[in-house]
Amino acid sequence: MDAAEFRKRGKEMVDYIADYLEKIDKRQVFPDVEPGYLRPLIPDCAPQDPESFEDVFKDIEKIIMPGVTHWHSPYFFAYFPAASSFPALLADMLCGGIGCVGFSWAASPACTELETVMLDWLGKMINLPDEFLAGKDGQGGGVIQGSASEATLISLLAARTKTVRRVQSEKPELTEADIMGRLVAYASDQAHSSVERAALIGGVKIKNVPSDDTFSVCGSALKKVLDEDKASGLIPFFFCATLGTTPCCSFDKLLELGPICNKENIWMHIDAAYAGSAFICPEFRHLLNGVEFADSFNFNPHKWLLVNFDCSAMWVKKRSDLTGAFKLEPLYLQHHHQESGLVTDYRHWQIPLGRRFRSLKLWFVLRMYGVTGLQEHIRKHVRLSHQFEHLVLQDERFEICAEVVLGLVCFRLKGSNELNKALLKSIDEAKKIHLVPCYLREKFVLRFAICSRTVESTHIKFAWQHISQLTVQLLEKEGKKVTFQ
Amino acid sequence: MDAAEFRKRGKEMVDYIADYLEKIDKRQVFPDVEPGYLRPLIPDCAPQDPESFEDVFKDIEKIIMPGVTHWHSPYFFAYFPAASSFPALLADMLCGGIGCVGFSWAASPACTELETVMLDWLGKMINLPDEFLAGKDGQGGGVIQGSASEATLISLLAARTKTVRRVQSEKPELTEADIMGRLVAYASDQAHSSVERAALIGGVKIKNVPSDDTFSVCGSALKKVLDEDKASGLIPFFFCATLGTTPCCSFDKLLELGPICNKENIWMHIDAAYAGSAFICPEFRHLLNGVEFADSFNFNPHKWLLVNFDCSAMWVKKRSDLTGAFKLEPLYLQHHHQESGLVTDYRHWQIPLGRRFRSLKLWFVLRMYGVTGLQEHIRKHVRLSHQFEHLVLQDERFEICAEVVLGLVCFRLKGSNELNKALLKSIDEAKKIHLVPCYLREKFVLRFAICSRTVESTHIKFAWQHISQLTVQLLEKEGKKVTFQ
Repeated sequence: MDAAEFRKRGKEMVDYIADYLEKIDKRQVFPDVEPGYLRPLIPDCAPQDPESFEDVFKDIEKIIMPGVTHWHSPYFFAYFPAASSFPALLADMLCGGIGCVGFSWAASPACTELETVMLDWLGKMINLPDEFLAGKDGQGGGVIQGSASEATLISLLAARTKTVRRVQSEKPELTEADIMGRLVAYASDQAHSSVERAALIGGVKIKNVPSDDTFSVCGSALKKVLDEDKASGLIPFFFCATLGTTPCCSFDKLLELGPICNKENIWMHIDAAYAGSAFICPEFRHLLNGVEFADSFNFNPHKWLLVNFDCSAMWVKKRSDLTGAFKLEPLYLQHHHQESGLVTDYRHWQIPLGRRFRSLKLWFVLRMYGVTGLQEHIRKHVRLSHQFEHLVLQDERFEICAEVVLGLVCFRLKGSNELNKALLKSIDEAKKIHLVPCYLREKFVLRFAICSRTVESTHIKFAWQHISQLTVQLLEKEGKKVTFQ
Repeated sequence: MDAAEFRKRGKEMVDYIADYLEKIDKRQVFPDVEPGYLRPLIPDCAPQDPESFEDVFKDIEKIIMPGVTHWHSPYFFAYFPAASSFPALLADMLCGGIGCVGFSWAASPACTELETVMLDWLGKMINLPDEFLAGKDGQGGGVIQGSASEATLISLLAARTKTVRRVQSEKPELTEADIMGRLVAYASDQAHSSVERAALIGGVKIKNVPSDDTFSVCGSALKKVLDEDKASGLIPFFFCATLGTTPCCSFDKLLELGPICNKENIWMHIDAAYAGSAFICPEFRHLLNGVEFADSFNFNPHKWLLVNFDCSAMWVKKRSDLTGAFKLEPLYLQHHHQESGLVTDYRHWQIPLGRRFRSLKLWFVLRMYGVTGLQEHIRKHVRLSHQFEHLVLQDERFEICAEVVLGLVCFRLKGSNELNKALLKSIDEAKKIHLVPCYLREKFVLRFAICSRTVESTHIKFAWQHISQLTVQLLEKEGKKVTFQ
């Protein structure tokens, strides 16, 4: 395919994408396929000779679309949102066209420098303390990671290196293996599984801190486990606080936790993967109070800020903590600007070496929506979640299971877990809407997350009517079961 | 921006990208900017109100392009190639449009299933042993990672978990920390820095195995370090063999190394990040002989197989080794197909949780080029590197520093490192072509890598004439220095 054909096919693809997104509400949100559906539909091996674009293109509807879960359907209420917007799609096209791999400043200066400045823009939008910004001569700064999991891992590894060095200087008789064997990381019992995974990868222990009855970790809970562990000779070194937990969007109490971490020489990382986008609205910014105690902070514009996946924004107060954990410098990656102090080589900030020009997405989205446009998007989602909450509350058969703060509603039928599993099963089978469950303590709970950019009040009403109707059928059936038992 | 405007702007962007790539040879391959150039060109913070697409668009040439290193220029000979092709760009547009996050089968069945089948296609193209393929009921299979660094890390972690479990079952008196403290990983002294980094992350020791005078690790070299380390109580557990090292594209001797690793219970990972693409040509496939001894294998179609970054293909013989190292299963990520045996949840195979629909790029590229089209691409690059090699060899002032096997030529002026540094400096300053250096043993060497999809014989001739001319000027200057000393 040459440039001339790309001009033609690229434009057809633009139209296909516009059509797909404009009419996505007409597609069934969750596919009908069974595992293994795709393999029989395509050949066993790659073709020897080139096929035409037409042949490939017509297979999109035939082979791919029947197996797609439509994350941008207004009937998609599962997980958390995956952001999507037209400005971000345009920026990603440009990113692909430029096709640079920006592992160092020299590998493409624009790629590195735009990222640093965009993370400053974004940091200012959520009113991060100045220490987290790069500015012209700051010690902190931001970086785009691929996912919150990587941000958690990188911060845990930086904390590990820092602590091993500190303990070794205090107690030179200890070997690195001795110290590693005594390090402990902590996170809420509501924290994302990626935190436990980061500790597994880093080869250190991790312990859950019990959350309170609002599913938040408070200072006294952390203090209790720290005291026990220190008494038994362990070395606490890392705490991952969550703002907006995955099960129910609860918030750890930063203002209590932060001072404890600071006093105990514990790195505090904040994972606000979903909730972080909301902090651009002044009315939600208070949820971030206490960030001033943290060493690192992360949220995912690719969840809720209209920047297509992947774009996970991470900031640190001391960039040297990250780079100090990893820096390895073979000659073919050195360049003569390196020691100027102005230069950032982002490969020292992340797990992979290569990186795409992802800051273009932020630049396009922030400029073409403006802060006010993005605030409107957040506020619409929060409004819709409260609309759904009110519908649930008006129905005596149901209960709300956790405070609705942002765009997630946790709800269930009053009654057994089995009953709620049966309700979810009937929702799954009908495939009119898509949502996923969670456990809160021992309770099986349905999560209703406002996701799509184009979801409106009518879709919320439809979803609730649909759930109500399935509930009636379910309770009738259950009633019959009881009657005939 | 609504769908109607996206149709218009998307088409403009397609034309912009086509123009950029068609006329990329007219742009200076390496930018003129100094560190910090970008910040003064844009505002201090994000705009409150939306800006128009036109405003953003015109800033691409004004702010971004002056700072771009043009990786797809036919005058770019640095690092290794970053793949780019029109079919891959089209597939990436589609990937963005669908915008699913495929961390589990259910999150988008097509995303997972196409990936499994595409990795089988690709595995067959390089004639990987069947054990590495997923097929309908294989124990192995492939996955797309973001980078070779991640593939190395994941395999090292899987090996670590496997070894810790084995040693614990053999010697229950040892704690996990005891074992971790005695684990050692190995790689060639020519291996990529990401291998050392993987060991740092995993908290285990790593040792260099000395390469021979062809920069390859042979069996006896590995055996020697293993014997020494075992004698001193260490536990060797992981060896990363490299096919196509970054400095000079040398090849470790798999057929000698593999049997040693198998006998010693050492996980052998093969990193063929750059060279792997060449194995689709029968005449280069012999370089992969010995892969049958490996536990995992990785190469980057995003380097040399015309699939835009990121697409790093990794295969394992036992998928349970990867998933066993990490599996954590919160309820909101479970789905009822999970235990069917047919289902792959790729999030257990990788560091991040989320993942894009990257297999679309492979599907588009493999079909629209066909195996023969891709072989032509590889063969053209190898032909061009030999063309450059011959030009160097005809000039008595220069020497070739390592065997030219694929698309990389390591060369230098006969003489001091200082002289060669001066030559590179004059190349850097002229900015007509772009390349980077390396050290081979103590020698400072220039790396000339064939990179661009559109590079032709004329560009190679131009590059050599340019280097020759700069050499004349340099030697004249040096001569004068000598004269006047």
